[in-house]
Amino acid sequence: MAKYQQLVDLLRTQIEARIWPPGEKLPSLRQQAEQSGLSLMTVMHAYEVLESQGWIVAKPQSGYYVAPRAAESRPRLPTQAIAKTDQADTNSFVFDVLQATRDPAIMPFGSAFPDPELFPQRQLMRSLVKVSHNLKPSDALNNLPPGNEALRKILAQRYAQQGMTLSPDDIVITNGAMEALNLSLQAVTEPGDWVVIENPSFYGALQVIERLKLNAIAIASDVEQGIDLDELEQALQRWPVKACWLMTNRQNPLGFTLSVECKQQLVALLARYNVAMIEDDVYSDLYSGQDKPLPAKAFDRDGNVLHCGSFSKNLVAGFRVGWVAAGRYAQRVQRIQLMSTLSTSAPMQLALADFLSTRSYDTHLKKLRQTLAKRKQLAQQALRRVLPADAQISDTPGGYFLWIALPEHINTTQLYHLALKEGISIAPGQLFSGSEGFSHCFRFNTAWPWDARAEAAVETLGKLIAQLRSP
Amino acid sequence: MAKYQQLVDLLRTQIEARIWPPGEKLPSLRQQAEQSGLSLMTVMHAYEVLESQGWIVAKPQSGYYVAPRAAESRPRLPTQAIAKTDQADTNSFVFDVLQATRDPAIMPFGSAFPDPELFPQRQLMRSLVKVSHNLKPSDALNNLPPGNEALRKILAQRYAQQGMTLSPDDIVITNGAMEALNLSLQAVTEPGDWVVIENPSFYGALQVIERLKLNAIAIASDVEQGIDLDELEQALQRWPVKACWLMTNRQNPLGFTLSVECKQQLVALLARYNVAMIEDDVYSDLYSGQDKPLPAKAFDRDGNVLHCGSFSKNLVAGFRVGWVAAGRYAQRVQRIQLMSTLSTSAPMQLALADFLSTRSYDTHLKKLRQTLAKRKQLAQQALRRVLPADAQISDTPGGYFLWIALPEHINTTQLYHLALKEGISIAPGQLFSGSEGFSHCFRFNTAWPWDARAEAAVETLGKLIAQLRSP
Repeated sequence: MAKYQQLVDLLRTQIEARIWPPGEKLPSLRQQAEQSGLSLMTVMHAYEVLESQGWIVAKPQSGYYVAPRAAESRPRLPTQAIAKTDQADTNSFVFDVLQATRDPAIMPFGSAFPDPELFPQRQLMRSLVKVSHNLKPSDALNNLPPGNEALRKILAQRYAQQGMTLSPDDIVITNGAMEALNLSLQAVTEPGDWVVIENPSFYGALQVIERLKLNAIAIASDVEQGIDLDELEQALQRWPVKACWLMTNRQNPLGFTLSVECKQQLVALLARYNVAMIEDDVYSDLYSGQDKPLPAKAFDRDGNVLHCGSFSKNLVAGFRVGWVAAGRYAQRVQRIQLMSTLSTSAPMQLALADFLSTRSYDTHLKKLRQTLAKRKQLAQQALRRVLPADAQISDTPGGYFLWIALPEHINTTQLYHLALKEGISIAPGQLFSGSEGFSHCFRFNTAWPWDARAEAAVETLGKLIAQLRSP
Repeated sequence: MAKYQQLVDLLRTQIEARIWPPGEKLPSLRQQAEQSGLSLMTVMHAYEVLESQGWIVAKPQSGYYVAPRAAESRPRLPTQAIAKTDQADTNSFVFDVLQATRDPAIMPFGSAFPDPELFPQRQLMRSLVKVSHNLKPSDALNNLPPGNEALRKILAQRYAQQGMTLSPDDIVITNGAMEALNLSLQAVTEPGDWVVIENPSFYGALQVIERLKLNAIAIASDVEQGIDLDELEQALQRWPVKACWLMTNRQNPLGFTLSVECKQQLVALLARYNVAMIEDDVYSDLYSGQDKPLPAKAFDRDGNVLHCGSFSKNLVAGFRVGWVAAGRYAQRVQRIQLMSTLSTSAPMQLALADFLSTRSYDTHLKKLRQTLAKRKQLAQQALRRVLPADAQISDTPGGYFLWIALPEHINTTQLYHLALKEGISIAPGQLFSGSEGFSHCFRFNTAWPWDARAEAAVETLGKLIAQLRSP
C-alpha cells in the first residue's frame, strides 16, 4: 500500500474513533510530516485525498479541520400521505431488486435475509426426520388454524419468559410473517381505509397496502429514535386511521429500536384512538445486549395489538412458518386464513415444535447474535473505509442491516443499477418510501461472511459512489 | 328384520333398479301376497310404508303406482347476481360447519376432504425423510416463486401426458389450491369487479369473492350438464365481467363433469369476451373410467385460463401444496404471492417432487379411485335405503360427493343442526349459494369407511329427514 494511503487509513480510523472529533483542527502539514516521518509531499497527498472524500475540510489561511459528522444532521422526511400513483413504479422495482438477490453470482448486500449458513441446519433436519417418521393421517386436521397446539404453547411460553401472559388460543400459526401481516391487515381494514406506517418502512408494507387498496400515511421516523409520536397523534386526528403497521425492534430499514416508554405511549395512544396496531417484530430475537427487548404487545391491555413474528430471519427461511398473537382479532385472522391458504403445512409446524422443545434454539440464537454482531462490525469498518466521510452509516445495535445516507445528490437507484452490473446488489432507498425522499440512501445487509469477495465488492461499491459523487 | 320391512327393502331395490320404472303399476295387494307368500296384512303394511316414504302413490279405484322419479324434474336455480348482504350470514355459517367437521367424534359426512387413511402415508414419509436428510441452506432461495423447478417440470410432464404443452415457467407452486385460486382471482380483478361462478358453487369461491369485495353472478348449473352456456353468454353481455371461476371436472358440490364440447365452447366464449377463466380442478385425478378428462385449459390458445390444481384431495392434505398453470398471468401471480405468503415451504415442495418422481403416485391414484368408487356405491345404497323416494341423489361418476335434493319443504340447515346433535355433520345447501334456492339440498361426503358407525349415522339421518318430512 502506498505511504500516503497508509496515512489516509490511519487518519480515517482516528476521525472515526473521535480522536479527532468533528470541527477539530488537524495537525498542520508540517507537524504531520514531522510526527509521521513522511515527506511533506506524501502528507499533502493524503490530506487531499481525505478532503476529496469529505473527511476533512481546508480552511484558507487556517489549516485542515475534521468535517462535521453526518449523525449530527441526519435527514428526516416529513409525515406524508402516499398517493397510489407513487407506488406503482416502486412496486415493480421491488420485484426487480428481489429477483437480483436470488442470483448466487450476485453479492447479496441488498438481500433481506441473513446468510442461511448461519442456521442450525443439522438440528432442524433431525427434527424434520423425526416428525416425518411419525406423521399421522390425522395431522392435516389437527394442524388447521389456529395451528399446531404444541407450537402455540411454546410460543406462549416464550412470551411468558418476557413476563407477557398470552393465551395459546390467541396465537395463529401462519405461512411466515408475511402471511401473518397480510391476515392482520385484512382483519382490521377494508379497501379504502387509512393505515399508518413509518417513513421509511419495510417495502412489503407498501406493497400489501397497495394490493389491498388501502391509503397510507407515512410518519416521519428518525434513524435512532424511531416514529415521532407527536406527528403520529396529529395524523390520527387528521385522518380516519384504522390500523398502524409498525416495527418496534430493529426497524427495517432504519434499524432503530423504540424505547420502552415510547412503546408504552404508542400502545396507549392507539388504544385511545381505537386504532389497531400491527406490530411487525420479525427481528426481535436479533437483539444486542443481555435482554430481549419487550414488544409493544407487552403493554397491550385490550387485545388491540396484533404481534407478528417469524422464524425466517433467525432459524430457517424455507419452512415458511410465522405467527400472529392476534388478541381480540384471533378468530377473524383464523377465518381469513381458512379462505386464503387454508392453513400452514402440518409437517413444518410439527418440525418446528419439535426443534423448539429442545434447548437448541436459544443456544443457536446466542451464537447467531454474536456472529451477526461481528459481521456487522466488519461491514461497518469496511464501509467506513470506502465511503465518503459525509456518508452517514446508522449505528444502532442488533440486527444485520445498516442504513446508509450518502450526500443528497447521489442517487442510490442509479448506484443500484451500476452496482448490479458489477455483480453487487444493494437495497436502494426508493424501495422503502412512496416518495423520492430517501433516494440518496440504501440498506446494506451485513449478515454475509466477510471474505475477500465481500471486501472486493465493498471496494467496488466505494469506487462507484466516488464516481457518482464527482462525475 | 320384520317381514314387511323385508318386502319394503326388496321393492325399493327393484324400483331403484327400474324393474318397476316411474309410473308403472305395482302388483295389487292380493297379487303381491300370492307371489311373496306373505299375509295380505303384511303386504298392506309394506305398501303403506313405501307410500309414506314417497316411493309409490295410491290411485283410488286403480291401485299402487311407482312415484315419478326425481331426476326427471331436477331443480335448477336461475342465474342471479349475488348481493353482498346475502353472503355475510352464510360466511359465518361456513366456519361453523368447517369447525364441526374437525371434531373426530363427529361423523364427517359434511367434510370436504377424503378419509386421510386412503393416502400413501408411508411412501410420503419416506420422501420427506429423504429430503430432510438432504436439505441445503440454499433451498429457501431456490424454492421461491415460481417454486421448485423439478416439481414444476413433473407437473408439466403430467399435462403433457394429456397432450397439453405447458411451460414449467408458467406454473406457480402455491400453498394449496386455496392460495392458487386466491392469487389467480387477485391477478385478474380489482375490488368492485364482476365475477361469474356456478350456482351452486364451492363455498370457498363465495367467501373469497366477498373478502376481495367483488360482485358475483351465479350462473344456473345443472347437476349433470353443468353450467348453462347460453345463460353465461347473456351474463357476459349484461355485466362487465372480469373473471369466471368454474369447476369443469366433478364440480363441487353438484358432481358434474363438463363435456369436451362444452369445455371447448366455454374457453372460446370467454376468450371472445376477454374474460379470464379460473379453472378450479382439484378433483381432476378422481375420475371414473379409463381416461382422465381434459381440463378446459387444454383448449386455451391465449394463456387466458388459470388452471388450479392440488394434491390435498388425492395425495396428502397437510402438506399444503398446490399450483396454478397461470398462462399469461404467471408473473402477476408470482408477484402477488411474494407479497402474500412469500412462497410455499421448501421441504414440502422437495418432498412432493421426490414422491412424484416415482411410479407410486399413479399406482396410488388408481387404487384410490377404486376405493372411492366402492365407498360411493355403498353410500348411495345406504342412503337410498333411508331417504324418501322423492329425494334425488346425484348419480355422476367419479369424486366422492353426492348432492342430495330432498323435497322442497325440508330445510337442510335445520337438518344440519339436528344431525349435529346426533354427532353427524352434513354440508347443507345454504353453504353453496348466496340465496335460499338450495335450502332443501345437502352435500354428502362418501369417502369414509362404510362400517357400522357410518351405517348407523345414515340410519339416524334418515330418521331425522322423516321427522322433518312430516312433522
